[in-house]
Order: sequence, then structure tokens, then C-alpha cells
Amino acid sequence: MNTVELITKKRNGQALTEAEIEYLVNGYTAGDIPDYQMSAFLMAVYFNGMDKAETVALTQIMRDSGDVVDLSAIDGIKVDKHSTGGVGDKTTLIVGPIAAACGVPIAKMSGRGLGFTGGTIDKLEAIPGYKTSITEQEFMDQVNSRGISVIGQTGHIAPADKKIYALRDVTGTVENLSLITSSIMSKKLAAGSDAILLDVKCGSGAFMKNQEDAEELASLMVEIGNADGKKTMAMITDMEQPLGNAIGNALEVEEAIDVLKNRGPEDITQLCIALGGMMIYMGEKASSPEEGMQKARTVLEDGSALTKFRDLIEGQGGDPAIIDDPSLMPQAEFCMELKAWEDGYIEAIDAMRIGLASQHTGAGRERKDDVIDMSAGIILCKKRRDHVISGETICKIYGNDIKKVEKALEEVTNSVRISVKKPDDISLIKKIID
Amino acid sequence: MNTVELITKKRNGQALTEAEIEYLVNGYTAGDIPDYQMSAFLMAVYFNGMDKAETVALTQIMRDSGDVVDLSAIDGIKVDKHSTGGVGDKTTLIVGPIAAACGVPIAKMSGRGLGFTGGTIDKLEAIPGYKTSITEQEFMDQVNSRGISVIGQTGHIAPADKKIYALRDVTGTVENLSLITSSIMSKKLAAGSDAILLDVKCGSGAFMKNQEDAEELASLMVEIGNADGKKTMAMITDMEQPLGNAIGNALEVEEAIDVLKNRGPEDITQLCIALGGMMIYMGEKASSPEEGMQKARTVLEDGSALTKFRDLIEGQGGDPAIIDDPSLMPQAEFCMELKAWEDGYIEAIDAMRIGLASQHTGAGRERKDDVIDMSAGIILCKKRRDHVISGETICKIYGNDIKKVEKALEEVTNSVRISVKKPDDISLIKKIID
Repeated sequence: MNTVELITKKRNGQALTEAEIEYLVNGYTAGDIPDYQMSAFLMAVYFNGMDKAETVALTQIMRDSGDVVDLSAIDGIKVDKHSTGGVGDKTTLIVGPIAAACGVPIAKMSGRGLGFTGGTIDKLEAIPGYKTSITEQEFMDQVNSRGISVIGQTGHIAPADKKIYALRDVTGTVENLSLITSSIMSKKLAAGSDAILLDVKCGSGAFMKNQEDAEELASLMVEIGNADGKKTMAMITDMEQPLGNAIGNALEVEEAIDVLKNRGPEDITQLCIALGGMMIYMGEKASSPEEGMQKARTVLEDGSALTKFRDLIEGQGGDPAIIDDPSLMPQAEFCMELKAWEDGYIEAIDAMRIGLASQHTGAGRERKDDVIDMSAGIILCKKRRDHVISGETICKIYGNDIKKVEKALEEVTNSVRISVKKPDDISLIKKIID
Repeated sequence: MNTVELITKKRNGQALTEAEIEYLVNGYTAGDIPDYQMSAFLMAVYFNGMDKAETVALTQIMRDSGDVVDLSAIDGIKVDKHSTGGVGDKTTLIVGPIAAACGVPIAKMSGRGLGFTGGTIDKLEAIPGYKTSITEQEFMDQVNSRGISVIGQTGHIAPADKKIYALRDVTGTVENLSLITSSIMSKKLAAGSDAILLDVKCGSGAFMKNQEDAEELASLMVEIGNADGKKTMAMITDMEQPLGNAIGNALEVEEAIDVLKNRGPEDITQLCIALGGMMIYMGEKASSPEEGMQKARTVLEDGSALTKFRDLIEGQGGDPAIIDDPSLMPQAEFCMELKAWEDGYIEAIDAMRIGLASQHTGAGRERKDDVIDMSAGIILCKKRRDHVISGETICKIYGNDIKKVEKALEEVTNSVRISVKKPDDISLIKKIID
């Protein structure tokens, strides 16, 4: 096979065979095909796309480029959950304990974040003592004994995706459905779970700006997962405004605890019941999603989901005292507030801009090697459709560098719109795809 | 400026500013922008194209990336001729002497070839002693004293194009109108002539397979040249079958001598009169192209064009005895013949396949550092519309490696079609664009 011919074939709109995709991906991962040919190929894919067979092949080849985790030593149906990423999305910290409390084994490997806030693993590191890196045996043992473990992804999962993603990031070739799908699913399929629930975000703060694109992505991912023999479902959920009130690492852990105490913000609670219910159903601990949701509500109300979260922290060496006293987590030195400049209703809190503001505070990374400020972030005191009176606090911005906080305040100011009329409701859960 | 943003801008179909193109081209040439970003950008250009302003900017920035030759020390209007490349195209060896014989100073820098046969410079090296590399002063002096010099292009002409072309070649990004135009024209504009005549080939053996594409390329190049203040014209000429009868380096020099002796094949003679006539007109040694063509015919008939070729060879240290005895040039050891397998008319001699066959004999390079076999190549004994009887020789294949000659024979066999009916005529000169 000849790399230029394969680039040209895709450029001319033809589909590649599995063997051709394998040649490209494995050749690139091994260093035999140079970056400049791969990036030209990726741009050709951006324009001409890949059909389903190509996307399945690409996903499976990237999955097989590294370790494929064997979770068979863990009893029960292991259900993984993946969010395509949004602002204020701390659902894993909540739905993991909810599902585990209902008997679904949670053996989760999560990533770090590059962007608005840290990833799940970064957030967990706001908990003093929590070890995100433990041995595979410890991981399995903890899931078998406590029902839940959340650790960082090892470097040996889908190295082809890692290398290709890094290249896409610097060559303007991120935004393609097949490339996004295969990147997400290659890692999910290698992570060893039996079933996968995808939370596909849609709106200003998400990768997919409109529902049509989100549904297309979700359908393709569900198809790819099922084609691999793993029960896969997806929920399309709103990301026009941030999820919940907290954005930032320690701030989000604190909010997750509030939700687990059944006194968290309504939107994130509702979403976690839906996602958790679906995981319970997929893990065969409920006979329908509705029964799963009912069970999810119960474990929030009776405190058993919170107990699972305590179990998780204790098992991984963290200090469970933060559950009773969140101020044991890092606290920011400075706080500035955005006040309403007129009476009215909050018409929009642009998730994308709030995400950027959060990054400005130091809660997220701009570069791979940036150190995250665990205490920094934003608390929304008002959300979309809330009424405000002039001078009332809309949100609070936390950080340890006053200049960064000021910069974030400026961005936050631009993210909020107040209107005279109460805006229409936007449904949080837009569609379920299976 | 940010490279990813510029890639994304072009990917999204927007036009870049001159400053943005300059940032990319100069950054890439200097090594500050890596290959993998440039190749992604080039693929985005392949899909979304460049408008005229962008193409002008790209051409001028590449022109200015190296030396811009000053030919003002040479008297008269210097007319350059450039062919987009075809099979059997030895016109430079003929029209240079024709125009010079009519008083148009020919100060030509030519390239080597990567492909079917060598470039003009490779062909000239088939002449024992001919120096293709002389000093700039010697070059100028020879044009002033003898009226003609043909040398190899220096490495300092448009280095940005050189680097970008090498990348396009291995990333499937050659076939784009703006990239082709800017690549050709940046070098032509840097080469210092006052006027440029473009011979845009069209047909199976050319880069442009159909007349519409060829006209589009020609029009754009003419526009770019005129925008730079150089009188530029183009002829669209046929390349369905090879030009003339000879393909190969020494073989083509021999045929060029035949044409200059006014006993060469009709098609190449006709084309050289048209191109030469146009150069004489552009060099203001004739008041119309028709008068130029008349003068071109005269200098072929009276031997003064041949004398100019002798002058050229002598001036550059070559042995002019080859004009009287072409066997002084390298001769091939083996010769195989393709015989007609039935009676009929030659319906087609596919230029592309003949070109490939020529490359197989060793007459062309497959890789940059391949050494050309000067004696290898093909002689067509029949051309399109000629009648053949079964067993008659259609062409002869020359080479020094019997295996290569056999491989070429196979390719040649597939390139020829014989039909019962005499095929329609195809006009050699399709259009003139100015």
C-alpha cells in the first residue's frame, strides 16, 4: 500500500477498506507514516467523511492499538458512562455512587481535562489524599469489595487515538463526526465495560452546538458500540447554560456532595436521576429505565448513594471528612461578584463563555502541562429563567490571582443576558437514543 | 497570528489576507510552521480553493522567498517560454534557437524533470560537454554575445515553492488550480524575463486532462503574470498522444535537430512555429503573431535556427558535432519493437502510458535521486490516424536493461489502439489566451 494513494483515494471521496485504514493508523502510530501525511489524510476525512464501515474499522483499529482492559474478574454487568463534555458537568461523581448503591459495579477510568475545567480525575484530586492512580489489582478489588472505583486512564489505552487526537488538535481537523466518534468509542471499547451510556451534550457550551448534530453523533456512537457487542445507549442533554451552579474542581465536588445529600440544584439532580436510572437499567438492576430512575431517587433520599461516595473516597485513600465539611478542600483567596445591572429575567448564561471564564480563573488548563487551581471557579447564584432585581448577585468568581479573577469577571459579564420577558423553558433531556 | 486558526479559516471556506498567506508561507519556509500544519492547510486549499487575490498573493510571496533574477544587463525584450509538461515535449530546444535567430534574446533557466522523461536540462546533458551550470556573468555574456543561453535553475529561485511543492507531492495536494498556478508563476516571475509564453498541455499525457481545466489554468496564469507587469500569453495545446516521435533524452535532442534541419515530424514542427512565432511577436521582432510565424518558418528553412542551436552548444562547452552525427550522443544497447497485431488505423497512442513506458526504460526519474539513462526511450514510427498493416512496426523501445525494456514494451502495448475506421483529427493548437 502507498500512503499518498490512500490520501488521494479519500480526497477523491472514496471509502477506504479496513486493511487500508489499518495500514494508515498502525503505520502512523508506529512512526512509519509521518505527521504531514496523516494530517493531510485527516483534512481529507474532514471534507469527505467516512462511512459507517470505515468508522467502525477506524474505531476498532484504534481500540486495538493498546491495552484492552479485561474486567471479567469483577462480578456483574459493568456499565460505563461517558459525557462528551460540558461546563459544570460533575455527573460522574454523582451517578457513579447512585448506580453503585443500586448494585451496579462501577469500574471507571476517567480522563483529565483540557479546556474549561479539569476532568473527573482532576476534580477528584481536589479531595485531600484521593489516589487517582492505583494498581489494576487494587482497582478490581475495590470494585468487588466496595462496588465502585474511579481511577485515571492509563497511557496504554488506545495510543493510536492519543497520537491522532494530538495531531487533529493542531491541524484544524477535530470537527468531524467519524473522527470524534472513533476517538471517544475506541477508548470506551478498550476500557472493558459491558455496557456504555453516552451523555451527548448539545448547545453553546458543548462541542455539538445543535440537536441535529448531537443526534447524529449519538446515533453513530450507539451504532459503533453495539457493533462491538456492547449494549450502548445515549442521551442528548442540554448545554446552553452550565449544568448545576458550580464550575471549578473543588466547587464541583462540593456541589456533587450536595446532590448526593439530595439538596443540590434541580437541573443536575434531575439529570443524574435520569442517567443513573438508565445505568441501573442497563446494569440489569431494574426492569425499565423508569424503575431505574425510581431506584436512583430512593438512594439519593435514603443517603445510600452518599454512603457509596464516602466508600469510594475512603477506598482510594481520600479524606471522607470533606463530605461533612467541604471547606477541607482547597479554598480560594479572592471572590468577586457579578451583580444584576437591571431588573428582569435571566435570558441566557452562555455556557461557552462561562467555561472560558472558568478557565481564566485557573480552574482549567490552557496547555497540557498547566497546573490546575483546585479552588478556583464560578458559582452561579441565578440560572436561566430566574428573576433578578438590580444589584442582586448573579454569580461569584473565585480564584487566587486577582488579575485572573478580574479577567474572568469580564468574560462572565458578557455571558449573561437579562430580559424583561421570562424566556421559554429548554428541556434538559432532549432525546434518548438506543 | 495562529496557524491553527488560519488552517481552520481556509477549511471553513474563507479567503485569507495577504498578511495571513505571508505568515504561513514564510513561517513554513523558515521552518517555524511544521510540515503537518502546512499539509493540512494545503488539503484545505485543495477542497476550498483560493480566490484570485489569494493566488496573486501566494505567487508573489513565493517569488520573493528567494532571488529575483535581474536580466537588465541583457539588451532587448527577454521572452521566456514555459510548458506545463507533456510527453515528448522538446520544444524549448527548438523554439529557443528559432526566436534567438530572429533577434529575441533567450536567457532561459530550465528545470530537471521528475516523471516521464527528464526536463530540458536533463536533455541538454545528453550532449557531450554541455555545461548546464555556469556563472550568472557567463550566462548574461553568452546571451549578449550569442543571443541564447539555457542553464539549470539555481536553488535560490522561489525556495518556498520548492519546499511546498515537495510536500504537496507526498500529501495528495498537487491537483489544485491556485497551487499549480502559483508554483509555476512564482518561478517564472523570479526568473527575470520581460514576457512569458505558456504552453498549457491538455490531454491524457498532461496534468490537465480536459480543455476546460486547461483553459482555466491558462487564464489564471496569464492573469497572474500580467498582474505582475509581465506580458503573459498562453496556448492550449494537445497532449493526447506524445509530441513528435521521440521520447527520451538523447532521442529528443536528435529529433529537435531534425526539426531545426526542417525535416522533423509535422506536429512538433507546426507547434514550434506557432510558439516560436508568438515569442518573436512578444519580443517585438514581428508586428503580429502571423508575421512571427512566417519568420519562424524562414529561420527553419534557411538554417539560421540550426546555427543558433550550434551557437548555444558551443557557447556552453558542448560538442556541436552531434548536430551532424547524433550517434555521438549516448546510444542504447537494446531495442525492442511493437508490431501491429492487425491492419487498421492507429486510433490512439495514450500519452500518459507512453510516458510511463518511457520512465520504465530509464529515461525518466521515479525518485529525485534516480540517475537518468540518456540513451533510453521510445521512438514512435506511427502516430494517431496513421495506417498500419499487421506486422508493421508501431514503435521502438530503447534501453540498456533488457528487463526494463520488456516492462516498457508491455506498457506501450497497452497504450496503442488500432481501429478499422480512421479516427477524427484532433487540433494540435486548441486556443490562444492573452
